Amino acid sequence: MKQKKFLLNENEIPTQWYNIQADMPNKPLPPLHPVTRQPLTWEDLAHIFPTECCKQELNTTDRWIDIPEEVLDKYKFYRSTPLVRAYELEKALGTPAHIYFKNESTNPLGSHKVNSALPQCYYAKQEGTTNVTTETGAGQWGAALSYAASVFGLEAAVYQVKISMQQKPYRSSIMRTFGATVEGSPSMSTRAGKDIITKNPMHMGSLGTAISEAVELAMTTPGCKYTLGSVLNHVALHQSIIGLEAEKQMEKAGEYPDMVIACFGGGSNFGGVAFPFMRHNILDGKKTEFIAAEPESCPKLTRGKFEYDFGDEAGLTPLLPMYTLGHDFRPANIHAGGLRYHGAGMIVSQLIKDGMMRGVDIPQLETFEAGILFARTEGIIPAPESSHAIAATIREALKCKETGEEKVILFNLSGHGLIDMTAYDQYINGDLVNYQVTDDDIAKNHIGV
Amino acid sequence: MKQKKFLLNENEIPTQWYNIQADMPNKPLPPLHPVTRQPLTWEDLAHIFPTECCKQELNTTDRWIDIPEEVLDKYKFYRSTPLVRAYELEKALGTPAHIYFKNESTNPLGSHKVNSALPQCYYAKQEGTTNVTTETGAGQWGAALSYAASVFGLEAAVYQVKISMQQKPYRSSIMRTFGATVEGSPSMSTRAGKDIITKNPMHMGSLGTAISEAVELAMTTPGCKYTLGSVLNHVALHQSIIGLEAEKQMEKAGEYPDMVIACFGGGSNFGGVAFPFMRHNILDGKKTEFIAAEPESCPKLTRGKFEYDFGDEAGLTPLLPMYTLGHDFRPANIHAGGLRYHGAGMIVSQLIKDGMMRGVDIPQLETFEAGILFARTEGIIPAPESSHAIAATIREALKCKETGEEKVILFNLSGHGLIDMTAYDQYINGDLVNYQVTDDDIAKNHIGV
Repeated sequence: MKQKKFLLNENEIPTQWYNIQADMPNKPLPPLHPVTRQPLTWEDLAHIFPTECCKQELNTTDRWIDIPEEVLDKYKFYRSTPLVRAYELEKALGTPAHIYFKNESTNPLGSHKVNSALPQCYYAKQEGTTNVTTETGAGQWGAALSYAASVFGLEAAVYQVKISMQQKPYRSSIMRTFGATVEGSPSMSTRAGKDIITKNPMHMGSLGTAISEAVELAMTTPGCKYTLGSVLNHVALHQSIIGLEAEKQMEKAGEYPDMVIACFGGGSNFGGVAFPFMRHNILDGKKTEFIAAEPESCPKLTRGKFEYDFGDEAGLTPLLPMYTLGHDFRPANIHAGGLRYHGAGMIVSQLIKDGMMRGVDIPQLETFEAGILFARTEGIIPAPESSHAIAATIREALKCKETGEEKVILFNLSGHGLIDMTAYDQYINGDLVNYQVTDDDIAKNHIGV
Repeated sequence: MKQKKFLLNENEIPTQWYNIQADMPNKPLPPLHPVTRQPLTWEDLAHIFPTECCKQELNTTDRWIDIPEEVLDKYKFYRSTPLVRAYELEKALGTPAHIYFKNESTNPLGSHKVNSALPQCYYAKQEGTTNVTTETGAGQWGAALSYAASVFGLEAAVYQVKISMQQKPYRSSIMRTFGATVEGSPSMSTRAGKDIITKNPMHMGSLGTAISEAVELAMTTPGCKYTLGSVLNHVALHQSIIGLEAEKQMEKAGEYPDMVIACFGGGSNFGGVAFPFMRHNILDGKKTEFIAAEPESCPKLTRGKFEYDFGDEAGLTPLLPMYTLGHDFRPANIHAGGLRYHGAGMIVSQLIKDGMMRGVDIPQLETFEAGILFARTEGIIPAPESSHAIAATIREALKCKETGEEKVILFNLSGHGLIDMTAYDQYINGDLVNYQVTDDDIAKNHIGV
């Protein structure tokens, strides 16, 4: 019988993260202070983030960074995650391609987000922090952070976009079960929230607003730090555990990927699975292709500009060098809430600029069609975000069917869709649509610099 | 670092199920025909169930039964499941006990039910069946059956108790995503359903009604077989994969359980984890204790009678020899929907009668308190059903704290609670209560014979 699933023993789980910044031929440009426009130091960032994360953020020299023993201990709750050969999907497609997926949906939080929530909370605790705060949209990151805070004995306050809170109430319940305080944003608990509610009592929130609230809470509360689940370099560093495990598991399978594919919001799961393999392109002459799958309705990689822009809608964060649609771009209300972000992380932006990877944009309906085929063949209902990676994989596998090539394709299944079932209902009932973006839609937005 | 999680390689996954009937000192009494009161043959049962399942049901001689290659192939999608040492829970309790749990929540359906759904659908397909049907309450079994039907290319029709369908809409969406037809029961698609709706248009359904509808569909539809997710012997047989794996994993951990604990509805997850260990009590003189945790509000093991009774409320099924509260006992509307059943399986009933295991009943609030402690220590939000096993484990671990005994306790985590978050919300908000059952409540119910 052919082996379907590849796991690592506890003693094979990587003990260091991989920092691609050390190997990049062109380093990412530095983030700039929003007022002085000077490159930021880690001390600047450490006002709101845990210090160790700030140092990691700007570390362009150390290729390997030790995973703290206490974090490794928690990783072992749910890692290694399985590498799975998708035989049933291959069969349904009739493709000669070998399709593998790294299954990050098997942990109790249901997505890869916990890989970075744990170290961020660990460092915060080590540095004497008592409280952490963050914003969340659909709630994958908020749930992961709530859990990690509970594990390390921190109080957590999560600002969840009000409309998401109403659409996906189970995710707020998960956060509360882990002991977090969840506020619908805009809330009356911050100056920023109050101002918005005063102006518009019916405001249903946005990620930009929620970021402003969480940052304000961190800046005005002694012993409180702010955390972020994507976009930043230290998040991609923590997520490298995905690709490092996959590398060992592919070796057990006796194969090496010709293509690595992941969905793309801010870059956390993409960087996680891709960067460890990309180092072999940089250092060992491998020719693996890297594909980031974004929604057609939020096409920053395929149609954005490479510019300095703000990370939030209100323009309060540092200026980041990134592919962006403009910080006030308002993506359509697709179900892949985790991919509705106007910009790409700094590392990925530089890699795209240097031709080391590429983006592909996928219409919403194609992602749900792919998700349902995947569920009915491989048995897992994917998160709407992850279905973008599946759809991109199916496109490539069907190309192989035409050419007869036996390419080895690895994609990351970033999370399951059990909390997103209303989206599947709507698709099955024919109530979902695609959202195209015109050049005019993009042209009218404001880019930071 | 201490090892937390124990897994098996694919080639270590058991290839045979364990049939405890072969080793029981007193065999279960035979099921009786509801009209003639004569012992049933497998041919009698084969009118509605897949033939192979009927033979397994009445097989009291073969200790080991081969798992078909095709089923094993599908098991490898998600098995082995982890055996986990609950260090963090131990620490929180301050107990010297060693607590292990078998984590059956890690498969994409979220519970152990898929272990029996797969072989039942496989046998149905092999025998030329084109359609399968079943009933489901909370929907764990319905979801598992829908997936298994999809895997083996069968059509599935699931009758879901109408009130459950409204309370947990995500589970019906999961079934539909796998391609099943889901009918709220009572429905207009069967004679039984129509009769009930005509009498009471506002009837919100019960498991008894849904069973009647599914059985009627199977009996009146050519090529359609009925399937059941618990109570019956062949279901416990299929679930023995849980305990057989756990046995090998405990060996890797270098320990053997002094106690095995599982929650109890009809007996599928209890039998699954317990029977393989119980064989060593029977054959090798081991002294492991076996504890089945039932809800205080549905106490058939601790306060029921051992009698022949019907399996359904309407009295249409064969008469089964079991501990029962009476087939028209109406359990309170607790959130552990999978444990709201009036009777116990035939094997477990005989084992209790013979003093080889015992039941314990747990109040609802204690189960949620246990579930939240487990979530905050071990990171997994348990199904309300599984929290009964956790609560019973905590009771035993606290006894060890008093006596100083280092007992090894193994419990089965039958499923996760991600689709049950409203229940956690209600508990956190203080809206849940306990339901006690008086002796009068029990005395007024009808027992079959």
